This record gives sequence, structure tokens and C-alpha cells, in this order.
Amino acid sequence: MVDIEAVLSGNRLVLSRLLTEVENGTDAGRRALDDLFPRSGKAHLVGITGAPGTGKSTLVTCLALELRQTCSKSVAIVAVDPSSPFTGGAILGDRVRMRDLAGDTGVFIRSMATRGELGGLAGATAGVVQMLDAAGFDFILVETVGAGQNEVDIARLAHTTLVVDSPGLGDDIQAIKAGILEIADILVINKADLPGVENTERALRANLELGYVHPLEHNGNHRMQKDTKQGVVQEGWTPPVLRTVATLRQGSAEVVEAMLRHRQYLERSGLLKARDEERLRNEVEHQLQAALVRKWKQGVSAERYEALLQEVYARKRSPGSIANSLIG
Amino acid sequence: MVDIEAVLSGNRLVLSRLLTEVENGTDAGRRALDDLFPRSGKAHLVGITGAPGTGKSTLVTCLALELRQTCSKSVAIVAVDPSSPFTGGAILGDRVRMRDLAGDTGVFIRSMATRGELGGLAGATAGVVQMLDAAGFDFILVETVGAGQNEVDIARLAHTTLVVDSPGLGDDIQAIKAGILEIADILVINKADLPGVENTERALRANLELGYVHPLEHNGNHRMQKDTKQGVVQEGWTPPVLRTVATLRQGSAEVVEAMLRHRQYLERSGLLKARDEERLRNEVEHQLQAALVRKWKQGVSAERYEALLQEVYARKRSPGSIANSLIG
Repeated sequence: MVDIEAVLSGNRLVLSRLLTEVENGTDAGRRALDDLFPRSGKAHLVGITGAPGTGKSTLVTCLALELRQTCSKSVAIVAVDPSSPFTGGAILGDRVRMRDLAGDTGVFIRSMATRGELGGLAGATAGVVQMLDAAGFDFILVETVGAGQNEVDIARLAHTTLVVDSPGLGDDIQAIKAGILEIADILVINKADLPGVENTERALRANLELGYVHPLEHNGNHRMQKDTKQGVVQEGWTPPVLRTVATLRQGSAEVVEAMLRHRQYLERSGLLKARDEERLRNEVEHQLQAALVRKWKQGVSAERYEALLQEVYARKRSPGSIANSLIG
Repeated sequence: MVDIEAVLSGNRLVLSRLLTEVENGTDAGRRALDDLFPRSGKAHLVGITGAPGTGKSTLVTCLALELRQTCSKSVAIVAVDPSSPFTGGAILGDRVRMRDLAGDTGVFIRSMATRGELGGLAGATAGVVQMLDAAGFDFILVETVGAGQNEVDIARLAHTTLVVDSPGLGDDIQAIKAGILEIADILVINKADLPGVENTERALRANLELGYVHPLEHNGNHRMQKDTKQGVVQEGWTPPVLRTVATLRQGSAEVVEAMLRHRQYLERSGLLKARDEERLRNEVEHQLQAALVRKWKQGVSAERYEALLQEVYARKRSPGSIANSLIG
């Protein structure tokens, strides 16, 4: 039995257990999400992403401290970590740098392990965020490590997306950074006490103003334009470029202030509602897909399925044609 | 109409167009995959992954040259790049460093853009790899940028997974690296002319021998053991640790030799068949899921769907309960 009252009254142990159920996609987890859903929709969801080496974790810690101490807001941190496909464990489980937050009941930290199923991470993260939202946290900070599809999927969850950069990153990192620059609502240059910070800021501002040009394609005709989707956001919002030194807790007040301003902007422009609805529509599609597969699996004979798989293994029939005849 | 004969006779333009259809998940793309599927199953699939800054692209180029010039094998390279969610374009579309391969008809290079749908990248990559396999390439090298779920998903596609490391990476990178070390069949230390290469090699060998320990958890009880799944592979195969300087084309012959040895090992041990079957089973599940959703969407009224979505937006009912009543 899931003790929803305990979660709502702030029992962190019960919340943790429930999040594990949600992450694992169990029936109990699904039921809890269903039951708690009407309570959700109040938290402000912030995605924090950026290339490796930019000091994201320290910045997240810093922002959480700022939100707690200056704004008296409760904060949940969701860390989406690289993890082993075999152990299923989150490597950064004990986050050394987050020690500063220990003992504060207004802060809750959750490390996600990436789950086995294809595309499972984004789905599981959506559930965890929704549960934390329902549990009453004012701010939910979702930190993603790495680059690519994960960032994009998770940015869709967020009301406000912070992209973190820092001076002195290598070429490969620049390429990774490039892919996520366009999803930024706020740009943060962390480690701003390092040499080269002016160059980093100039490059970011140039990207913002001129549309993005990949460093490897300066000579070419591959210049990309921001499309209309981003254009909508930009009509009333220019992503600010802010400097921080998270290890010294410098600049975090300005970042929090920008987050609050962005929230107001989203509310005023109607985009908050639009982003929420898009997120929920995606969530329904995701749930629908899962439910269709579950239902279908209950109705099919294991022998028939296995026999058809053998035809695929022998390369007599393609996975696509098997799928079609199975549901036909 | 899809001209399959043209693909099989080596027409690269037709192949490119077909791959775009596959990547976009169009009906034509699906039909082509179905038609060409019986021709697939001959290529050796190699995943190449590793932290940013390790020089993966250069190494891939180098390996392709080696396979072409020394072994006379045809090679397709699939680069899974970070990309913009808005333009849908692959940023590294023109890969400067791959210029060396230009003009060789035995080499084909494809950059993947990450696609919009959740978990779409792995699915689209699987289709593209299958198509290249059917088109007759001997080796398909899939390079992934970044870390996390993408790497894991794509490693599942590969017969042989190379994990690339290099000396002198920062702490954040170490953490990312950690998550993918366990999927390696071959470990490559690129940039082996840099200082610190001995330390890098020692650390990798220690990981291999002792099971993985995260750098942040040296003091603790979080030491992870390789589980039995990896144990099976290790029974007859110890991942070799090889040094390369890809920019000087040093060491690539040894890497190719290890790939060929790994292929033989997989064949001898029966693992080649087992890995292929697992991949195809995943592919059937993926296709099934897509087909179920397509079929369901044909049967549902758009008005009813929209009305139910409104209840979710108003937080009266959860996405999960809506999904269940929609398919009920």
C-alpha cells in the first residue's frame, strides 16, 4: 500500500520509496502517480544542463542554497547521471559536493539511474518530477550530465532551462555545447574567475544575436537560423548571459533572480500554460504507448510470439512485418 | 517508389534518400526496411564511444582508412551527433576531419540528427544501421558523442563496442567515462603521445581487473562488481587496452586486428548469434510499440482525445488514467 498522506505531510522516507516505484514503473508507482496527480502543477521546473567540466553540480548546489536561504523556497534536486547498464546504479549517488545541503528538510536530492528500456530515462524522470511536484516542492532542479537527446527530452520537462558554460573547454566540448545552446532560457558562465571568460561571453552573445554557427563551419553555408518555435520565446525574452563562480557562491543570486523573472515572463505571456500542456500531452502519449504494449502482451500467446521471433532471427521476415501481423 | 535495386548496386544517392526516409520513420522508409531485411545480417557492427575530448572522430576516420586500405573492406560510418531540437539538423554534417575519406566509394558517411520523439534516436539509428547492413557494407562504425543512455542503447546495436579514453581528462569527464566503461569490448587510449598515458592505462587496467570504483567513492562502500552478464563475455574475452595516436595514424592496425579477433571470438562462442537475436528482439518490441500506437490512432476520435487531454490540463485526471480509459 502506498501511503500518500505520509508523502504530503513531508515523510521523506516514504517519498523515497515511492520514487523508486515510479522509477521502476511498477503498478504501485503508477497508482501513486495517478492519485497524486491532482496535487501537481505548482512547482517551477528548472532544467540545468551543459557540457561536462562546467561545474554544473556545484552550481546546482549553490542555486539550491540560494533558493532556501534567501527565498525560503523548498527545493528538490533530480540528478540524471550516467550509470551502468548492468548495475542499474547511479554513480554519483552520494554527491560529495552536495554535503552543504545535508540536514535541511526543505531540500530533497534524488539521483536517477538510467533505466534499461529504450528511451526509458526521459519517461522515468517525468514521473519522478511529477511526484516531487505533487509532494509540494516549490522548485525542482533537474540536472543532466552529458549531451544530446537526454538534454532535449529533459528540457521539454522544464519551465526554465539553464545552459551552463565555462571558459577554456576543448573543441569536442564546444561541439557538444552547440547542440544544447538553443534550448537555453538562461545562459550561465560558471568558473567565471578563469582566464578567457570574456571570450566565452562574447561567443555566447554572438550566438544569441546572430543565430548559431558551428565552430567547424565558420567558412560555410551551414549557418542555422533560430526557427519560429524559439522565435516565440524570444519575442519577449532574451536569454540573459550571467557569470557565476559557484565554488565561491558568487553570482547565484542573479541566476535565481533571472529564474524568477523568467517565471513571471512565462505567466504573463501565456507560455507557462502552453509549456505545461505540451508536457502533459507528451506524458499522455508516453503513457498510452506503455499501456497499449502492456495490454497487448496480456492477450498474445508466448508460443506464437516466439515462433515469429524465430522467423526474424532467420531473416525470413522483418521486425516491421512481424509487428504488423502480430497486431493485425 | 523505392528503388531497392539501385541501393544494392551501389547507388549512394538513392541510399542517402532512403536513409532519410528511414530516419524520418516514413511509410516508404518502413517498406524499404522490410524489403531489404533479408539481405541484412552480414555486416560487423562496431560501436565507438567515449568521453568528449578523446578524439573519437579522428580515431573513427583512422579505423575506416585501415579497414579500407589494409583489409579491403567497405565501411559505413554512422555519426550520432548532438543536434538542435529545432532545426533537426546534424551539426557535424560536414566532418572536416573526415576529408581523408572523400572520394572513396567504399566508404559511406552518415550523420544522424536526433529526432523529436522520446527515445527516437536509438530507434532511428537501428533502422539506419540495418539499411546499411543490407546495402552490403562489411563494417558499420557507429560513433556516439556524449554519455549516458544513448551510449548504452547504441552499444546494444553493436557486435563490438570500443570505448575511447585519453590522458588528461578532467574530473567531470572521468565521471561520465565511468558509466560507459563496462560496455567495452576493446579499450582504446587515444592521444597516447600525451603525458599521463601510463596513469590512464593503469587506471583502466585496474578497473578491468578489480571491478569498477568511482573516483569520488574511493573511500566508501559503493564499490561495484561486474555482474554475471558481463561475466559471460569475460569468460573467453578480456578487453584489450590499446594505445593509439589517431592524428598520426599510429596504433589503428592493432585496433582493427582486435576487432577482427573479437568477431572470431563472438562467432566461436555463439555470442554473435545471441547478440544478434537480442538486437532483433529489441527491434521487434520497438516496431510493435510503434505499430500499436499507429493503429490505435487510426481508431480514435480526435475530439474525444482532445476532450480527455483537457481533463489532464485541468489536473482532474492523470495521464495514466486517461491512457487506460482510452485503450479500455
